[in-house]
Amino acid sequence: MGRRIVIGVMGGGAAEPEVITAAEELGRRIAQAGWVLLTGGRTAGVMRAASRGAAAAGGLVIGVLPDADPDSADEHVSVAIATGLGMARNAINVLSSDVVVACPGGAGTLSEVALAIKAGRPVVLMGFEPGPAAAEAEAAGRLRRAAGPAEAVALIERHLA
Amino acid sequence: MGRRIVIGVMGGGAAEPEVITAAEELGRRIAQAGWVLLTGGRTAGVMRAASRGAAAAGGLVIGVLPDADPDSADEHVSVAIATGLGMARNAINVLSSDVVVACPGGAGTLSEVALAIKAGRPVVLMGFEPGPAAAEAEAAGRLRRAAGPAEAVALIERHLA
Amino acid sequence: MGRRIVIGVMGGGAAEPEVITAAEELGRRIAQAGWVLLTGGRTAGVMRAASRGAAAAGGLVIGVLPDADPDSADEHVSVAIATGLGMARNAINVLSSDVVVACPGGAGTLSEVALAIKAGRPVVLMGFEPGPAAAEAEAAGRLRRAAGPAEAVALIERHLA
Amino acid sequence: MGRRIVIGVMGGGAAEPEVITAAEELGRRIAQAGWVLLTGGRTAGVMRAASRGAAAAGGLVIGVLPDADPDSADEHVSVAIATGLGMARNAINVLSSDVVVACPGGAGTLSEVALAIKAGRPVVLMGFEPGPAAAEAEAAGRLRRAAGPAEAVALIERHLA
Repeated sequence: MGRRIVIGVMGGGAAEPEVITAAEELGRRIAQAGWVLLTGGRTAGVMRAASRGAAAAGGLVIGVLPDADPDSADEHVSVAIATGLGMARNAINVLSSDVVVACPGGAGTLSEVALAIKAGRPVVLMGFEPGPAAAEAEAAGRLRRAAGPAEAVALIERHLA
Repeated sequence: MGRRIVIGVMGGGAAEPEVITAAEELGRRIAQAGWVLLTGGRTAGVMRAASRGAAAAGGLVIGVLPDADPDSADEHVSVAIATGLGMARNAINVLSSDVVVACPGGAGTLSEVALAIKAGRPVVLMGFEPGPAAAEAEAAGRLRRAAGPAEAVALIERHLA
Repeated sequence: MGRRIVIGVMGGGAAEPEVITAAEELGRRIAQAGWVLLTGGRTAGVMRAASRGAAAAGGLVIGVLPDADPDSADEHVSVAIATGLGMARNAINVLSSDVVVACPGGAGTLSEVALAIKAGRPVVLMGFEPGPAAAEAEAAGRLRRAAGPAEAVALIERHLA
Repeated sequence: MGRRIVIGVMGGGAAEPEVITAAEELGRRIAQAGWVLLTGGRTAGVMRAASRGAAAAGGLVIGVLPDADPDSADEHVSVAIATGLGMARNAINVLSSDVVVACPGGAGTLSEVALAIKAGRPVVLMGFEPGPAAAEAEAAGRLRRAAGPAEAVALIERHLA
């Protein structure tokens, strides 16, 4: 027994079509690997796409919402964690994830990558660039780059090993 | 599709044997009803007993931890939400629950019942007495008393209806 | 040098005229004693009355807001702490206070008294009754009752000593 | 009346001597301008240096701590806000600041700059580089660079105007 492995997928609420496609495939692959998917839970962008992919593959999707109302979760979320914390919930997304995957996004995604580095959670960058403040984490091997969902899953497996 | 119903079970980290027995039965009945169990996630008292009961019945157990480390979750927790928020996480326990059940406990449990009332979440009291500040919620029918697990589940069903 | 003593005053957003009068006098006395007043910061009830009393006496008023916008603070607040945490900010009100005073209020105030007990902060009850779950803290001398502002200040001094 | 202007100074817990010198001067200038200084409150690096500078100039210093204990604040902090939230308190640092100044730091500082951008708070970079995800905020004029404390104060005034 014991708790299940949780993979957090972060990324923009607004996203390009190819980012959406990749996030959905990533969600599906995470579910197929037997991991739990954690997202920010909202009905938008990367969160929604990854949730939809995991749900379609029969996976469990945890949505950690900024809102106080669980009914604000996307329809593909299995269990809504309604934090009511606004953007402070980004810390929970990261702390609850065994590995964090960062898809393209803006300042919210940057804050999650930064908090993941600070908390010592391994990060897979799938199209997101955190800039110079992340250099130390990258040198230490806790930050790796994936060209797409298949490589991201391979890197997650490596981080978990 | 859509998110699953979540029942939060709150109660003391230290508890009498009969309270433990009742919490375990409650966890089992929650799982058997097809609901997700949410607890404070720690390896202690009512949290652990309810988690064990739900896990034994094949249910999904979400543990919302005060700690930043998911590995601090009880072994019967399926998915650990590591908040790192200390006692501020009590608000999340309540907001994420469709119905909150309060078993005997101390100040922590009292804070959760109070926050549930404030947030408008229905509460089932199973051996916990919140005192005079809860009178208004009781008069409004959002606070009900159950003598044991079977009655608690009946009241949960009534609140959900 | 070193940080200043902070006294938190909690109570309802809606309050009777005599409660407002007492809260305002309490705020004034806290400022006159040289302590910092901490409230929930909103323009309502006990929070506003205590803030007004302290500000009139030239005191420093910290308002710890549930909102993300510092401009939502009452006009008598000197420094707004905008948490964006909703009701989870109640934990911060309590942890940041050397002594907590509870004026009449509802479920929000009850949650703050409960969290104060849990965190080991001394509490002065000035017209608020927390119920049976607080009995242990009262027996341990960490919970005392004041008939009005003058007695409350005397009890704060005793707790601080 | 009304609340006072709050300037948040962020930066590393470990910092080079010239960064410490600049942070101390920045704290002093913030106090001399009549603003409240907000820092992360701990006895380390940029936080401590800025707090010391402001305190030496007779300014008010608010320390927003990750810890639950106000006594963990640096000795130059006037009022400790004990959040008990761990790194989730970074969101409060930012939301409570009218302008955020980022000194050299690591992942924690990066998270604060990212959250400031997300929350729409103006940012002055004084030796910190947030990377490509901040480009949009910079183009919109909400992110400006200062070579040192005097220029930082001039940019704060511009943001406040």
